[in-house]
Amino acid sequence: MSSFHDFNKSIEIDEFLWDAEIEASKAYAKALFKAGILDKKEFNSIKKALKKIKVNKNPNSFEDVHMAVLNLLIQKTGNSGKKLHTGRSRNEQVATDERIWLKEKIFEISKEIKELQRVIVKIAEKNFGVIIPGYTHLRQAQPVLFSHYIMSLFWKMQRGEERLLEALKRVDELPLGCGAFAGSSIPIDRNLLKKELRFSKISENSIDSVSDRNFILEVLFALSLILLDLSRYAEDFIIFSSEEFSFIYFEDFEKFGSSMMPHKANPDIFELIRAKAGKIFGYLTSLYIVLKGTPISYNKDMQEDKIPLKEGVDTAFNTIRAFKEMLEKLKINKEEIRRKMGYLVYSTDIVDYLIEKGMNFEDAYATVKKLCEFSKRENIPFDCITLKKYKEFSSLFEKDVYLIFSPESSVRKKKTYGSTHPAWVKFQIDKAKEVLKNTKNKL
Amino acid sequence: MSSFHDFNKSIEIDEFLWDAEIEASKAYAKALFKAGILDKKEFNSIKKALKKIKVNKNPNSFEDVHMAVLNLLIQKTGNSGKKLHTGRSRNEQVATDERIWLKEKIFEISKEIKELQRVIVKIAEKNFGVIIPGYTHLRQAQPVLFSHYIMSLFWKMQRGEERLLEALKRVDELPLGCGAFAGSSIPIDRNLLKKELRFSKISENSIDSVSDRNFILEVLFALSLILLDLSRYAEDFIIFSSEEFSFIYFEDFEKFGSSMMPHKANPDIFELIRAKAGKIFGYLTSLYIVLKGTPISYNKDMQEDKIPLKEGVDTAFNTIRAFKEMLEKLKINKEEIRRKMGYLVYSTDIVDYLIEKGMNFEDAYATVKKLCEFSKRENIPFDCITLKKYKEFSSLFEKDVYLIFSPESSVRKKKTYGSTHPAWVKFQIDKAKEVLKNTKNKL
Amino acid sequence: MSSFHDFNKSIEIDEFLWDAEIEASKAYAKALFKAGILDKKEFNSIKKALKKIKVNKNPNSFEDVHMAVLNLLIQKTGNSGKKLHTGRSRNEQVATDERIWLKEKIFEISKEIKELQRVIVKIAEKNFGVIIPGYTHLRQAQPVLFSHYIMSLFWKMQRGEERLLEALKRVDELPLGCGAFAGSSIPIDRNLLKKELRFSKISENSIDSVSDRNFILEVLFALSLILLDLSRYAEDFIIFSSEEFSFIYFEDFEKFGSSMMPHKANPDIFELIRAKAGKIFGYLTSLYIVLKGTPISYNKDMQEDKIPLKEGVDTAFNTIRAFKEMLEKLKINKEEIRRKMGYLVYSTDIVDYLIEKGMNFEDAYATVKKLCEFSKRENIPFDCITLKKYKEFSSLFEKDVYLIFSPESSVRKKKTYGSTHPAWVKFQIDKAKEVLKNTKNKL
Amino acid sequence: MSSFHDFNKSIEIDEFLWDAEIEASKAYAKALFKAGILDKKEFNSIKKALKKIKVNKNPNSFEDVHMAVLNLLIQKTGNSGKKLHTGRSRNEQVATDERIWLKEKIFEISKEIKELQRVIVKIAEKNFGVIIPGYTHLRQAQPVLFSHYIMSLFWKMQRGEERLLEALKRVDELPLGCGAFAGSSIPIDRNLLKKELRFSKISENSIDSVSDRNFILEVLFALSLILLDLSRYAEDFIIFSSEEFSFIYFEDFEKFGSSMMPHKANPDIFELIRAKAGKIFGYLTSLYIVLKGTPISYNKDMQEDKIPLKEGVDTAFNTIRAFKEMLEKLKINKEEIRRKMGYLVYSTDIVDYLIEKGMNFEDAYATVKKLCEFSKRENIPFDCITLKKYKEFSSLFEKDVYLIFSPESSVRKKKTYGSTHPAWVKFQIDKAKEVLKNTKNKL
Repeated sequence: MSSFHDFNKSIEIDEFLWDAEIEASKAYAKALFKAGILDKKEFNSIKKALKKIKVNKNPNSFEDVHMAVLNLLIQKTGNSGKKLHTGRSRNEQVATDERIWLKEKIFEISKEIKELQRVIVKIAEKNFGVIIPGYTHLRQAQPVLFSHYIMSLFWKMQRGEERLLEALKRVDELPLGCGAFAGSSIPIDRNLLKKELRFSKISENSIDSVSDRNFILEVLFALSLILLDLSRYAEDFIIFSSEEFSFIYFEDFEKFGSSMMPHKANPDIFELIRAKAGKIFGYLTSLYIVLKGTPISYNKDMQEDKIPLKEGVDTAFNTIRAFKEMLEKLKINKEEIRRKMGYLVYSTDIVDYLIEKGMNFEDAYATVKKLCEFSKRENIPFDCITLKKYKEFSSLFEKDVYLIFSPESSVRKKKTYGSTHPAWVKFQIDKAKEVLKNTKNKL
Repeated sequence: MSSFHDFNKSIEIDEFLWDAEIEASKAYAKALFKAGILDKKEFNSIKKALKKIKVNKNPNSFEDVHMAVLNLLIQKTGNSGKKLHTGRSRNEQVATDERIWLKEKIFEISKEIKELQRVIVKIAEKNFGVIIPGYTHLRQAQPVLFSHYIMSLFWKMQRGEERLLEALKRVDELPLGCGAFAGSSIPIDRNLLKKELRFSKISENSIDSVSDRNFILEVLFALSLILLDLSRYAEDFIIFSSEEFSFIYFEDFEKFGSSMMPHKANPDIFELIRAKAGKIFGYLTSLYIVLKGTPISYNKDMQEDKIPLKEGVDTAFNTIRAFKEMLEKLKINKEEIRRKMGYLVYSTDIVDYLIEKGMNFEDAYATVKKLCEFSKRENIPFDCITLKKYKEFSSLFEKDVYLIFSPESSVRKKKTYGSTHPAWVKFQIDKAKEVLKNTKNKL
Repeated sequence: MSSFHDFNKSIEIDEFLWDAEIEASKAYAKALFKAGILDKKEFNSIKKALKKIKVNKNPNSFEDVHMAVLNLLIQKTGNSGKKLHTGRSRNEQVATDERIWLKEKIFEISKEIKELQRVIVKIAEKNFGVIIPGYTHLRQAQPVLFSHYIMSLFWKMQRGEERLLEALKRVDELPLGCGAFAGSSIPIDRNLLKKELRFSKISENSIDSVSDRNFILEVLFALSLILLDLSRYAEDFIIFSSEEFSFIYFEDFEKFGSSMMPHKANPDIFELIRAKAGKIFGYLTSLYIVLKGTPISYNKDMQEDKIPLKEGVDTAFNTIRAFKEMLEKLKINKEEIRRKMGYLVYSTDIVDYLIEKGMNFEDAYATVKKLCEFSKRENIPFDCITLKKYKEFSSLFEKDVYLIFSPESSVRKKKTYGSTHPAWVKFQIDKAKEVLKNTKNKL
Repeated sequence: MSSFHDFNKSIEIDEFLWDAEIEASKAYAKALFKAGILDKKEFNSIKKALKKIKVNKNPNSFEDVHMAVLNLLIQKTGNSGKKLHTGRSRNEQVATDERIWLKEKIFEISKEIKELQRVIVKIAEKNFGVIIPGYTHLRQAQPVLFSHYIMSLFWKMQRGEERLLEALKRVDELPLGCGAFAGSSIPIDRNLLKKELRFSKISENSIDSVSDRNFILEVLFALSLILLDLSRYAEDFIIFSSEEFSFIYFEDFEKFGSSMMPHKANPDIFELIRAKAGKIFGYLTSLYIVLKGTPISYNKDMQEDKIPLKEGVDTAFNTIRAFKEMLEKLKINKEEIRRKMGYLVYSTDIVDYLIEKGMNFEDAYATVKKLCEFSKRENIPFDCITLKKYKEFSSLFEKDVYLIFSPESSVRKKKTYGSTHPAWVKFQIDKAKEVLKNTKNKL
């Protein structure tokens, strides 16, 4: 039988809910007091005991955190403690504890995202003017401001946090008072519980409330998208910091070497960050499968939500923080960047040049395509092709074509809102700072 | 080479974006006109041609929907058409088309959810008073109103739609004007595009905008949670309509028989609904993996978003509709339900009885546990146990214990907000109707 | 920096490889001795020290299990220990340790599967003759022997073990001697290592060997299918043991009650078993995503394989064992089964009856379909329909039609190999026993 | 109702089973003939009609492929056709058809893998002698033969095919003759069916056989691992062919440009290949979730296996083929490779040098680590450091240290089986050719 006991019990993995369980129990005691189940003295003795139990965690040997706390309470308070579970069920307790814990974690992660966004803005401002080859398909495409590049992450994180805070709305709904699933026969004042536990609303339907774990899935998913975005920038940073690119550098790499090859300085942290997207999506998948096709209302299957919840949330927090701490140490190697920027990145600018001179887009594109083929075949960069030669491709080419071939000129050609033109990037950074300022005021 | 062409092309699977591509092209033409690239006549000829192309779909032989439309346009308008792609990139086109298509689909699905919710409320009202054994662990737990049970789905759907509409906020952000990823050299007025295409905002950063597919993941996930919830009620309905339960019935089952066993009437539709949770989560997983670790900004990998997008969204719509249509035909078998309600469902009510008489919860629970063991062992239902026998378990038992054993009495005992007490369920239904009314006004 | 150290280190989670690391280090020392890097005395001192380190685990403060063991060794043996890492890399160590650990675990799980299969056969034999309504779509379909039903799990488990042992072939391939990824400059005799560590073969390509983690995915997947199968029988058992079915019973249910409802006896163990399919597939998904798109050869991402490996394998083992232990306690309730077997399960037998009398299948099916409709509508069971009435459906019906309506007669009608005819089921059980006997001899 | 019909029917998606359905029907007719249900004339008329139906596919308007074929048959043969479904069920038909289809596909894919392996060997032989910097963590680690690098994929594909052929063993098990799930009352000779349909064995238990879809999951998973491996080499090739690396080149890139940037030559095919790992794992996930927790035996949920099966298998085949066709066109840029090989890749060789001279590994490693730090700090490559300076790090350094610094010397230093030493790589290639030769003989 002991093997079943182990298979069934969850105390080692739900211990993280200890504080939430204490808090929820205290609030519930107050509701019982108001309902006349506990008298003043009993209520006080419970409150006092819970305070002690909070400090002296002792989760061992019980099936779960709820039993552990309750049993310690009964040991300390006798008859009073024996009343605490009146009209209450573990089904609602666990859902309540998870929500209490999760709400706090969401705030912590939200704060960490803001910190990361601040670092991004700082870096964008500090390196304003640095121009890198922007990439599509990991091929040099067009010159862009590095600040523009890094600011793209700012907006991804902004949406990332937005999703998280929207999920919070549904986390922030109190199940306590729902009993096993049908409600409670004790006239528990759920509004009192809501106030005590600082929830925004109480659930409308006890069956719904006890059977729901989508609030966990939702948070895990919101976090998954954040880690997915970070996995992509981690990939970029790993590639950009390779010997072959050498665009950027992080001193911390020197700390992550090889046990065999003494010269190694590895991007371990970014590789781990890249991997965490997989880790968290695995937890999401796991809980989704667990819930699929289970009957309403509570089923024991739902106990398998603990590891995804705890590990998923912790993984996200640690990953965001690690990314932020690395980013703070980013060094940019302007010389290498300029040296490696190929001349082909100006091809689109030549197309635009021809359009300005009156050619239609399709013809301009076809003309420059031929020019590119010639240039690649003959291995002559754009700025070394003679004007005479240019004119063989189109008579519209004039001397001013040579003005095209500088990164600065290229980014300044961009006109649209949200583009890499320095003025628009500056505008973007200001807007981002406004966003951060408003957040500070709100939280 | 033709095998690569096939491997690379996407026209068969992005044909669903045809209308969106037309719409986006029309708006872009207007912006080009304003930017001075097209003159009035050219603009008009393009508009006219696009109208025709919309009707005469002819996607064949081109690489993708964007090329197909553009080529048809050039065939029809010559030089004018050759200007349409000025300052534009497929990278932004595809993201724009997908968002246009998705916005409309979200509205359709949202409407369908509302329809489903209306059916739920109708059923809850129509069957008010029917009491079923509520379940935890698929074991009879406590009596609940059927209306309470079915209303639990109402709130799940409410949150389901809430998530979807929140995702919409991020779908509703226009990429057009971002060029390949760096912005466009043509002074395209993105605010004009926003207005023409009825978007709520324009994206702040061109690199961010072109590299993002999280908006699809987000919608797929929001839909996944809806289908996850439906998979659980489908499971319930399959079980509840089995011969052994016979609680509910759907005439449509008669249409889904066996090719071998002429008596069969299978719950095919609910089984398919149960399965769809897997189907859509598979698409979500697929796209998540595709994006993981890909560099910024656009990569060809992202072309693999089409099937998840199209099939995922269609699956969700069809599943919700099928569930709704089935639910409309639900028949409840009150006699069977009452016949199968075991007497043990009143055990909690006996605990409450003893608490009311002054016993503490733990003792009351222990007392009734023994009573249950006795009753099961001796096979004597609660209402057949003599008072004398009751008193052996506790002297607090009096004659009024026999008043406990009716479903109606049991549900009326529940006191808390959100519980299965008829008054609270009534309150809940009214609140739900209010929710529906407000939605109607909004949409 | 300490936050990076924590983010990077893996010692808490790779501690399970401690014994494997000792074993691999000992073998490697022997290879170094043979290669002339260690002399006899050094080799002996290392062997002695490793024996002590095996017993006195002390993983703290080091980055990973490899560093921990090596550092303890150097503390104990000085210069000798400092030679152990000659020509060796952590990249090959971790892959080697994982394989050593996994091989042992596969044998343990394989043994546990065999135990489960033995229980299945025992139950099939013990309950031979019990006939249940077999289900498709969770609707009564045709009578089948319970032994036939439960034996279906035997063959699923047989294939489950087959897959696992096939995966073992690829686990059983030694990486040691591959260095960081290019091979080692020390003439390490990999055949000696193979023999010492009881591997079946050595890897052919050092880059392949160090970059591979598919062997873990493969094992996790093989285990996932086993747990998937168990999730389905768990579902059956939960349903079959509900009050409404009452086909089977497990005394252990009494141990899993509710904190609120004293009468509850819940199928917790089967619910948890059902859930574990999700848990393990989550780990599989996680590692698959981690590896997707990572460059060859070793990348730090691969460190994220530890939790999926350890937790996945342990989950599978515990789940199979729990299922087996529960199954041993299965009680069958023959009276309830017979009572709940509906008469409609004989519809196919009536079709067969008409075919025997010369009707073609399509007509026979159509005739019986009408009969079923009549019977359902009028609520008259097959054996209560008069012969006169039968003849209205077809003149082929004779008095012997009434011989059809018994479970025993129905199962005996089945003729095909693998069918539920008692003789074939007996044959099947004998074959299963042969399979088990052969396995015993092999392992 | 028509919306349910659409929701339920599968004809559009199971049409790919048309030929298999014909084949299975023909074999079944033969078994019916042997069982005396069909006479010679009826059997012949069915065979003839099936031949016609095979050519004139007409799947429209029926629920599924089985109904479509059967109905056409009845139209053509009347009473004979009406006998074909005697003792047969769609449940066994679909499982049989899927297995017939899948067996053929596995052979096709297996052949394609062999083709790919042949290309790998050809490339390894053709480029023998080319040395590239090998990578760990995408950082230059040690010089390796390009042939060694590319041969690593050979062995991954070898294991990939091995898994697939092992899965085949379980695909190759005939369900036909199992009826709906209980067996058939007609004395169908399943051994005859096995022979007719070229299966290796018949299933042992009808319930098991009809309820199983793990054979599909297994094949999808085996294919997933192949695509996972290809995703990693695709990643390498994308990076290696970037402007910054320029190690390799594929002419086909020129065909995949940008609609906006005329210079672009994108690695589209490799990006798509990288993405396909996500696509196929999504299908795997989908079907796994569908099956999780469904009761035994057949449930309609299982109809959702069609798209994963068809699309998953086709995706795998196309991806392997595309990879192979690209690989055939690989061009290696030796000059760029040599130019970009950093001197730090020799650090391990210096460690080995010191060990040979008598230093223990730990001290040698520490010494060279300091040397690397000095070299990086002062920006002096290893071969430009004076011997005097070397001696400051260790007196063991002699003039022969300068012999270390060549790629050729480095790879020749490797001694172990499976290492990058040219002799071992040659040995490896020979072994691979042997493997291919043996396969040819077998298939």
